[in-house]
Amino acid sequence: MSLQNPVFIPGPTNIPESLRKACDMPTVDHRSPFFGSVLHPARDGVRQILKSQSAEVFIFPSTGTGGWETALTNTLCAGDAVLAARNGMFSHRWIDMCHRHGLKVEIVETPWGHGLPADRYVEILKADKAHTIKAVLATHNETATGVRSDIAAVRKALDDAGHPALLFVDGVSSIASMDFRFDEWGVDVAVTGSQKGFMLTAGLAIVGFSDKAMAATKTATLPRTFFDVHDMLKGYESSAYPYTPAIGLINGLHTACQMILDEGLENVFARHYRIAEGVRRAVSAWGLELCAASPEVHSDTVSAIKTPTGFNATSIVQHAASTYGVAFGVGLGEVAGKVFRIGHLGSLTDVMALSGIATAEMCMVDLGLDIQLGSGVAAAQDYYRASPAMAPKLAA
Amino acid sequence: MSLQNPVFIPGPTNIPESLRKACDMPTVDHRSPFFGSVLHPARDGVRQILKSQSAEVFIFPSTGTGGWETALTNTLCAGDAVLAARNGMFSHRWIDMCHRHGLKVEIVETPWGHGLPADRYVEILKADKAHTIKAVLATHNETATGVRSDIAAVRKALDDAGHPALLFVDGVSSIASMDFRFDEWGVDVAVTGSQKGFMLTAGLAIVGFSDKAMAATKTATLPRTFFDVHDMLKGYESSAYPYTPAIGLINGLHTACQMILDEGLENVFARHYRIAEGVRRAVSAWGLELCAASPEVHSDTVSAIKTPTGFNATSIVQHAASTYGVAFGVGLGEVAGKVFRIGHLGSLTDVMALSGIATAEMCMVDLGLDIQLGSGVAAAQDYYRASPAMAPKLAA
Amino acid sequence: MSLQNPVFIPGPTNIPESLRKACDMPTVDHRSPFFGSVLHPARDGVRQILKSQSAEVFIFPSTGTGGWETALTNTLCAGDAVLAARNGMFSHRWIDMCHRHGLKVEIVETPWGHGLPADRYVEILKADKAHTIKAVLATHNETATGVRSDIAAVRKALDDAGHPALLFVDGVSSIASMDFRFDEWGVDVAVTGSQKGFMLTAGLAIVGFSDKAMAATKTATLPRTFFDVHDMLKGYESSAYPYTPAIGLINGLHTACQMILDEGLENVFARHYRIAEGVRRAVSAWGLELCAASPEVHSDTVSAIKTPTGFNATSIVQHAASTYGVAFGVGLGEVAGKVFRIGHLGSLTDVMALSGIATAEMCMVDLGLDIQLGSGVAAAQDYYRASPAMAPKLAA
Amino acid sequence: MSLQNPVFIPGPTNIPESLRKACDMPTVDHRSPFFGSVLHPARDGVRQILKSQSAEVFIFPSTGTGGWETALTNTLCAGDAVLAARNGMFSHRWIDMCHRHGLKVEIVETPWGHGLPADRYVEILKADKAHTIKAVLATHNETATGVRSDIAAVRKALDDAGHPALLFVDGVSSIASMDFRFDEWGVDVAVTGSQKGFMLTAGLAIVGFSDKAMAATKTATLPRTFFDVHDMLKGYESSAYPYTPAIGLINGLHTACQMILDEGLENVFARHYRIAEGVRRAVSAWGLELCAASPEVHSDTVSAIKTPTGFNATSIVQHAASTYGVAFGVGLGEVAGKVFRIGHLGSLTDVMALSGIATAEMCMVDLGLDIQLGSGVAAAQDYYRASPAMAPKLAA
Repeated sequence: MSLQNPVFIPGPTNIPESLRKACDMPTVDHRSPFFGSVLHPARDGVRQILKSQSAEVFIFPSTGTGGWETALTNTLCAGDAVLAARNGMFSHRWIDMCHRHGLKVEIVETPWGHGLPADRYVEILKADKAHTIKAVLATHNETATGVRSDIAAVRKALDDAGHPALLFVDGVSSIASMDFRFDEWGVDVAVTGSQKGFMLTAGLAIVGFSDKAMAATKTATLPRTFFDVHDMLKGYESSAYPYTPAIGLINGLHTACQMILDEGLENVFARHYRIAEGVRRAVSAWGLELCAASPEVHSDTVSAIKTPTGFNATSIVQHAASTYGVAFGVGLGEVAGKVFRIGHLGSLTDVMALSGIATAEMCMVDLGLDIQLGSGVAAAQDYYRASPAMAPKLAA
Repeated sequence: MSLQNPVFIPGPTNIPESLRKACDMPTVDHRSPFFGSVLHPARDGVRQILKSQSAEVFIFPSTGTGGWETALTNTLCAGDAVLAARNGMFSHRWIDMCHRHGLKVEIVETPWGHGLPADRYVEILKADKAHTIKAVLATHNETATGVRSDIAAVRKALDDAGHPALLFVDGVSSIASMDFRFDEWGVDVAVTGSQKGFMLTAGLAIVGFSDKAMAATKTATLPRTFFDVHDMLKGYESSAYPYTPAIGLINGLHTACQMILDEGLENVFARHYRIAEGVRRAVSAWGLELCAASPEVHSDTVSAIKTPTGFNATSIVQHAASTYGVAFGVGLGEVAGKVFRIGHLGSLTDVMALSGIATAEMCMVDLGLDIQLGSGVAAAQDYYRASPAMAPKLAA
Repeated sequence: MSLQNPVFIPGPTNIPESLRKACDMPTVDHRSPFFGSVLHPARDGVRQILKSQSAEVFIFPSTGTGGWETALTNTLCAGDAVLAARNGMFSHRWIDMCHRHGLKVEIVETPWGHGLPADRYVEILKADKAHTIKAVLATHNETATGVRSDIAAVRKALDDAGHPALLFVDGVSSIASMDFRFDEWGVDVAVTGSQKGFMLTAGLAIVGFSDKAMAATKTATLPRTFFDVHDMLKGYESSAYPYTPAIGLINGLHTACQMILDEGLENVFARHYRIAEGVRRAVSAWGLELCAASPEVHSDTVSAIKTPTGFNATSIVQHAASTYGVAFGVGLGEVAGKVFRIGHLGSLTDVMALSGIATAEMCMVDLGLDIQLGSGVAAAQDYYRASPAMAPKLAA
Repeated sequence: MSLQNPVFIPGPTNIPESLRKACDMPTVDHRSPFFGSVLHPARDGVRQILKSQSAEVFIFPSTGTGGWETALTNTLCAGDAVLAARNGMFSHRWIDMCHRHGLKVEIVETPWGHGLPADRYVEILKADKAHTIKAVLATHNETATGVRSDIAAVRKALDDAGHPALLFVDGVSSIASMDFRFDEWGVDVAVTGSQKGFMLTAGLAIVGFSDKAMAATKTATLPRTFFDVHDMLKGYESSAYPYTPAIGLINGLHTACQMILDEGLENVFARHYRIAEGVRRAVSAWGLELCAASPEVHSDTVSAIKTPTGFNATSIVQHAASTYGVAFGVGLGEVAGKVFRIGHLGSLTDVMALSGIATAEMCMVDLGLDIQLGSGVAAAQDYYRASPAMAPKLAA
């Protein structure tokens, strides 16, 4: 492994210099006014990135998994039913968490590579006349398969069924990289982390609650302390935390939000699409296919690439690490050994993306796949050249 | 507030240069061998600092509060009884957490400023013939009052009563700064965080489990996912995590353990005693008293200093921050407004300590207390001079 | 030596966090527009700090010594006469440099501890009817003795004598810390470095040239290449250098100038006076005297403190370093062993200054001097308290 | 310009993370023992990298240009003759410096792209029966043309002629990247800087003197102070400097030498060859030619690539910077507009090199050159794959 090469895992991402410096602080008293001066703008910044006017934003020293737990334990009671599709490793894990906390899960098994089945949701929700289903769990971007689902369609399913269930969305690998519309989609809890679109190290669970979700906290009886949103909210009122905050990371989050909003959300999304599309052109040039079943579910943050039957896709990742010092992502769960993943989110340039594509090519050839060296690079170059040029800027 | 002055809060501490650099890493794939090369030594280092041969060490991206929750939820069932004394804000909060998770707490109310009442424990434990008490909670060092309790005495109470309850110890503000003997004291779960004796930023809950505590996890039914020790342990077996680890902080923990063990645990403890004793000499010279009721409970990591009746101790902390850019700790809970706190843990030199004492003096005089300028400094200087000189060394 | 204690040498100073980060850059092409975007503002900032409208500012990857050489070699010819007083180690070294480059120096020997003898200058300049003296060298602040001289008086001497000699001023340990008036004083070349008032590491010679000095470059025949101001000026025209610039340090200089000008020059000078006066009060309280002969020559950046006859002042510096990990300055040249120096320039807080005073006290007592522990600290505390409070601010 | 892309200028190079951290130090007293603990190992490390047993190594806060001036002014007298070939911009500048310092230069005009003409040297030296030539200047690697000369052949010319002239070698862009043999080649002064093979920022001139060169300092009368080697040597004896050293950069140099020597000099050279050869394969695949006239003068640190007649090579560099945020080098002097340069020295991985090649391809196509996208990348990939794999390692 080399510290000099970019990483191509689907998070943590390459950290921009300015964010490393924002996080690397000498000790500041977390009860001093400085803390409020970064906490509140960080929460505001996240809210804007969620495209919400009023979501209550919580920042826990934790990870996206802690964000899932925050969503469940603050709004539900043991024995409550939730609806969830399983179409990848991360939706699987969230379902598993529900079971551990005593929730009943109506699972819609969905082929890995496909998006969330909104049509099935509407049937199930309509059939649930007693409204025993208290929440619908939706993974916006399945990091394991590189599949982006249509959250607006899930909202529509709820609306069409006239069902009052809460809508929880895992946006860990989408928020701040792909379009996310908290208010428009009627999201009740959105969950993400610091190490993906926010381009920081892991260490923060970032969660947004709607008014409806906040109301649900009043009746929720699942036990919680560390992830209790009311303790957190009470702390925020006096610019504090119920325990010691990760002040450097929050300063980094504040700075990251400023960077993202300065660039413009739509520009950030367009940039992610553009980098991703270059990678997809390379995949086509190699004669390979994505795990994602169709273009409308292509993720702009990660591509899971299927390798020929009989070939161990994981060997590409191992070879890239040991021979070229480059990190890609392995296949997980059902697609372990069948796909390898190129993460292309966060702060990535054309030039960095090309180096990842070039490395993948070398690895595949080294391991005997019938790939033309330079072919994927050329396809990506051609796309990057033709697409509107990004204005490169120096941000120290 | 100034970034140049040392902080004198009881954690987060002043971060040594070398630890800031250890934490500030470019992105490294957490599934690469590098991660194992810091994770395992970090866990080993913590184990040695706990003075344990075999404790299972867990490192969560969380804080000490998450460590408390780890201890409870992995070992207990709803309705279980636990025994705890309330002698400060942090013991109070742990008790509150127990209530939230459906545990019954036998609370021994203890005057703030006093240590844990082992004599009362033995009575209660002897009376609990049915062994309904499943765990005894003990706060080793009450950060709110600057009181260190005698954990060996708590163990003796358990042994004298022949009681099988687990012993959980909050060592958040003691471990790595004051003597802690996991094995000798028969501790079952020890809880600490990254931002005290380990001299890092907040962001890690560090927890040690005994074999007996690990055995208790098999029957524990309190819901947990993020803090589940078995998920974590399974991850460790392949040098991984059940979610994304805070790799930079873990690298910092690894480095911190090396620093501490290189200096020698007993030397670290002696250094903390020495710095603390200088502060205590200053307090005496000012004619003030500690919140800690007697010398045997004096904490070597934080001193809570009582101000005269009718004086608002919190004003010292506010004045120090706004006028001199120095952070002290306020009184919390029962002693709010009655004490201010000087944290003196982690990487602190005589010279830094003297600057804190000098600042406190100025503040007290500014606010009208009858204190002689220079008096506390002189007392501390006299002590620091007379005590065996520390070998200062440059560690970049 | 400890990396945690402040340093009390008269430069390099304690580096503010923000300046360390400004200097620590990844590699940027020095032929890219970025370089111009820091070079020109850095030059402009220095010009403002010099209080000049039109000085041509040069920044060499060198030190103040290189600045001296820049002044001489760009304006003079072998055999030229210059006038200089020797009242400390740094004026001595500049005279020595003149000799090495074939200049004739009219030396006015002046007691160390005294300022430049403007009255003698006027006599000598009047007597030099043939105007063989081409330049007058003046050390604004003698770092060795803590003596500030009156440059306006030197200018007046030149004017009273109607003498056309150039006026070269060494402002290495004054510029950006004490009032310096390039235009008003008719300075022709001002010399400083990055590691004093600009609070950076050593590595830049910073030099300002008047129009008259620029004109003199046309006829100067002393050989020079690295320090040639015309090569440099030509480079600046295209935002470049005649060789590879120290881009990180220049970015740091740019940031330092912004910090200083944002605070306000007069505020910076007042802050230096205030910190220095606290140190002087401590010296008085100890019953000691400064090397500086009278209050009007007291330097606000460094105090040279005389110890009793027969006592080796250097032992204080050695003891402070080895026992307390604190750096003071030794006496140099004529005053070696007779004084020790406390540097108090750059980014220093009351709190830091008090820690230096406290350390000096301990050292003096340890070494047998009849000093009352806490006495100097108390005197400084009393002064710092009484003087108008500084608004502390957090600048990350 | 982007801070995230690697740079491909022929220095300053991409700085390894560990070297940035080594340079970024809090202030340490340069008169403390710490300074000696980095100065002496840094000098020893440089000596080993020069492949010398006894060279006296000097480290000035300056650049390679200052190193040239150090060589000349410490060993020669005004009016002395020196022999030099002009085959590129840097040999030209050194000749220009000689003129400015009053030296007479016997210039052998040599086609740019060719190496030093040792055969002409031997003729000239043989003809100089009076030994009026005091020094031969040799640019080991012409950074402007990407040409490496044969210094052993220059030494042989001196020996064959039985001529006692000193041999001065500019190894700025070769030392620590390509084989350099101070002792074996009988080099008298070797000059380099911190920002090339040592992978640091600009700011240090690094110079080695042979015994013979040191002897010449006794009679040299060219004026010098800042660059005087005897002042420096006297300082070194007490682990000090004649002025304030750039202590962070010297700590960086110390660390860089350790890295280089730990990797093994021959491995470092082989790595440079390998990366360079990949670039050369790409150039061939593009149907372009190097400025370097023949393989034996190919530089392993920089390739100057000729573009077709009528095409402005500089536009590639401008386009790469403005469109892709990547820095290449422009052509200088005689080859301005005719070549562009890819720097490939220092800490560069295959993956980084491929990204530079890919970028150059896009630029050339964007600007209308008849280049096949991916062709150069494929050629380099093929070479990097086939050549013995480098063991990548993580060095934080």
